[in-house]
Amino acid sequence: SVSSVNAPRLTDSATFDLICRRLPPNRNLLVACGLEAALDYLEGLAVTASDLEYLASLHRFSKDFLDRLEGLRFQGEVRAVPEGTPVFGNEPILEVTAALPEAQIVETYLLSTIHHQTMAASAAYRLVAAADGLPVVDFGTRHAQGAAAGACTARAAYIAGLAGTSNVAAGCRFGVPVSGTMAHSYIQAHERESDALASFTSTHRGTTLLVDTYDLVGGVQRVIDLAGRQGERFDVAAIRIDSGDLGASARLARRMLDDAGLAAVRIIVSGELDAPAIADLVAGGAPIDGFGVGTALAVSSDAPYLDTAYKLAAYAGRGRMKLSPSKRTWPGRKQIFRESRDGMAVRDVLGSVDESRDGQPLLRPVMANGRRLGEQCSSLESTRAYSAAAIGQLPAHVRGLPPARPSYRVDVSPHLQNAADRLSRRLQDAT
Amino acid sequence: SVSSVNAPRLTDSATFDLICRRLPPNRNLLVACGLEAALDYLEGLAVTASDLEYLASLHRFSKDFLDRLEGLRFQGEVRAVPEGTPVFGNEPILEVTAALPEAQIVETYLLSTIHHQTMAASAAYRLVAAADGLPVVDFGTRHAQGAAAGACTARAAYIAGLAGTSNVAAGCRFGVPVSGTMAHSYIQAHERESDALASFTSTHRGTTLLVDTYDLVGGVQRVIDLAGRQGERFDVAAIRIDSGDLGASARLARRMLDDAGLAAVRIIVSGELDAPAIADLVAGGAPIDGFGVGTALAVSSDAPYLDTAYKLAAYAGRGRMKLSPSKRTWPGRKQIFRESRDGMAVRDVLGSVDESRDGQPLLRPVMANGRRLGEQCSSLESTRAYSAAAIGQLPAHVRGLPPARPSYRVDVSPHLQNAADRLSRRLQDAT
Repeated sequence: SVSSVNAPRLTDSATFDLICRRLPPNRNLLVACGLEAALDYLEGLAVTASDLEYLASLHRFSKDFLDRLEGLRFQGEVRAVPEGTPVFGNEPILEVTAALPEAQIVETYLLSTIHHQTMAASAAYRLVAAADGLPVVDFGTRHAQGAAAGACTARAAYIAGLAGTSNVAAGCRFGVPVSGTMAHSYIQAHERESDALASFTSTHRGTTLLVDTYDLVGGVQRVIDLAGRQGERFDVAAIRIDSGDLGASARLARRMLDDAGLAAVRIIVSGELDAPAIADLVAGGAPIDGFGVGTALAVSSDAPYLDTAYKLAAYAGRGRMKLSPSKRTWPGRKQIFRESRDGMAVRDVLGSVDESRDGQPLLRPVMANGRRLGEQCSSLESTRAYSAAAIGQLPAHVRGLPPARPSYRVDVSPHLQNAADRLSRRLQDAT
Repeated sequence: SVSSVNAPRLTDSATFDLICRRLPPNRNLLVACGLEAALDYLEGLAVTASDLEYLASLHRFSKDFLDRLEGLRFQGEVRAVPEGTPVFGNEPILEVTAALPEAQIVETYLLSTIHHQTMAASAAYRLVAAADGLPVVDFGTRHAQGAAAGACTARAAYIAGLAGTSNVAAGCRFGVPVSGTMAHSYIQAHERESDALASFTSTHRGTTLLVDTYDLVGGVQRVIDLAGRQGERFDVAAIRIDSGDLGASARLARRMLDDAGLAAVRIIVSGELDAPAIADLVAGGAPIDGFGVGTALAVSSDAPYLDTAYKLAAYAGRGRMKLSPSKRTWPGRKQIFRESRDGMAVRDVLGSVDESRDGQPLLRPVMANGRRLGEQCSSLESTRAYSAAAIGQLPAHVRGLPPARPSYRVDVSPHLQNAADRLSRRLQDAT
């Protein structure tokens, strides 16, 4: 929103917290993501001549305001938790401190970026937990909010532990491992399914063949027949089943393949899979070697949004907070202290930035004067490894799929609580 | 997916249908959207040198395949229903006919674009229906899958009848009317709420003031006090209530404003609104003049995805179809015939493109040889007007929010049914 920038003299330094107020019922943890994209945006922010022309055409803004916008760059500082960090309700994922107009104008972009990627990484984590060590691949871009959003989802999901993506742009742009998939239409374009399978193996080594375009048993049989005809040349890594009862179909296909001496051919399943469905297949012992997931990841369909907000925490050197029902916030610049015992996290304490407390501080400075700090951004692989380690330090019941009882403990430090109480009294008196 | 392109000699002409197989339970109709973005993509499609470099680095594709990709452009034809058209299950929203590799490589991009924008327009239509003539404004970008997705959502929502958006980029890029909103942080940045309100009115004419940052009654009273102090200069169009029981708060605020002689100040509400909540407020007679909606629009939270697919309908001049359970498709190039009686639509018939039938044909040629047909694209305003008229011709129970019983009737023509039966028998014999 640009409207609040259009005011005289409110240019003192403001601090905003980007938080998720409460976790959705079916999330025991969130996996913070989106920081790299957010920092890219802040470094590149510039109001163009055509932006100004458009805004002037609205006849709503004074010349003085448009003049001030013309030179606008982001010159503030940012603190954030690293991408891949598990976070909980009311914990700042990112904190912006800048002149109020700069801090305000970036609100919507930062929220949409951090919200989207944190939502995707958090949904991905549950798929990974459900698959219990088996690989899960992202097939979701077709249901993302455009192809660019799909690539960002693929990156977030990889950080949270997925094995790869079918989105080639995510491979090219972010280095996410890509995983090809054979299309039903390739089969259908041939007059005979057996011709399609043979033709596909002639150009793809170690490939995955789709077997259920017409009829599962017939499809698997045609793979077995192909192995017989090709002999030594047969180089098929897996078959994919994309419809029907996936557990029963996998058992049937496994038996047929094993009986034909094709025990090395793996079975991949896809088709409307989500975390509970994967957990059921794993618990039922279905002979499945990997999963392809689309919609449950692309739109996080069991929790399609998070209760994120970008809240003023300080202005002109003083703490600020909102008192409206159920939307109360914590004032001032803060720190998250993650306390551990024997290498396992036991609770987080939300405190003031200047407190000295036990526990690992999660918020780190990542930008000053509008420029990234540090040599370069972390590699995707190291971010992914960091995420797995950080999630691995949480209590087992928090890492699991069922609702965590008790949920992971987040306390507020006495120091921060006192500061909030004092400010609340002052606001109630003053307004 | 690029993998199926990597095959010898499958370069005959293919036709694909982009369809939604079944409507979600809480959608009586879909509003087709995304065509303009899809055509932009097809016109601009080009494989760059860095794309090829990346693909080569994967060591999965033959030199011959990469050479063929280098020259790849979309040179096919497209038929589609106009943006804003209400559509139903199994009706092609868009049909692509091109050499198989071209038609195949655009699958994911077309799906994500049409899926996202159709989902957004369809969610928006329900908000418009619920508001029963009152304006609804999009506040959703913060929960969209990135800011670019938010702008596309704002455009789709405007086509389906929303009054505007708070997304300035959607205004600049697409011409969607923008609607400013005052931030809680502006209030909080001031030491006193009364100072913030006075300051905001000094720079914004006919503005909307937020009244519930601290306490609703106090906030409304401060607006009334401001009117008293400013007298003739007082120029506030509305107040906005963003939390709590919106109906009760609106009644209370209305009474206070009316008692103070401020009957002309309107009341806008926002905060976790969706179609049922808006319908309840309208049915309850709450004195509300407009709604701001975020998440319910940005992620279509009551139906966060559609069952869309991109299915081969013909190849090398012959119809194709899939026989797998519950995913059966209709072969050949098709037409949707919308039959009317007394100006009201009574049913659609899905038939073959070459059939001669009564009813308005909905699929129109929009691209040939990879170039848009026609002078230029429709204006956003005319698309919006077309959509309202086309939806207005549907039966009232289909336009309403409760599940339509019966749902809108879509039949398959005897001609198409016969063609499908013949092809099904042939496939079962041949495979």
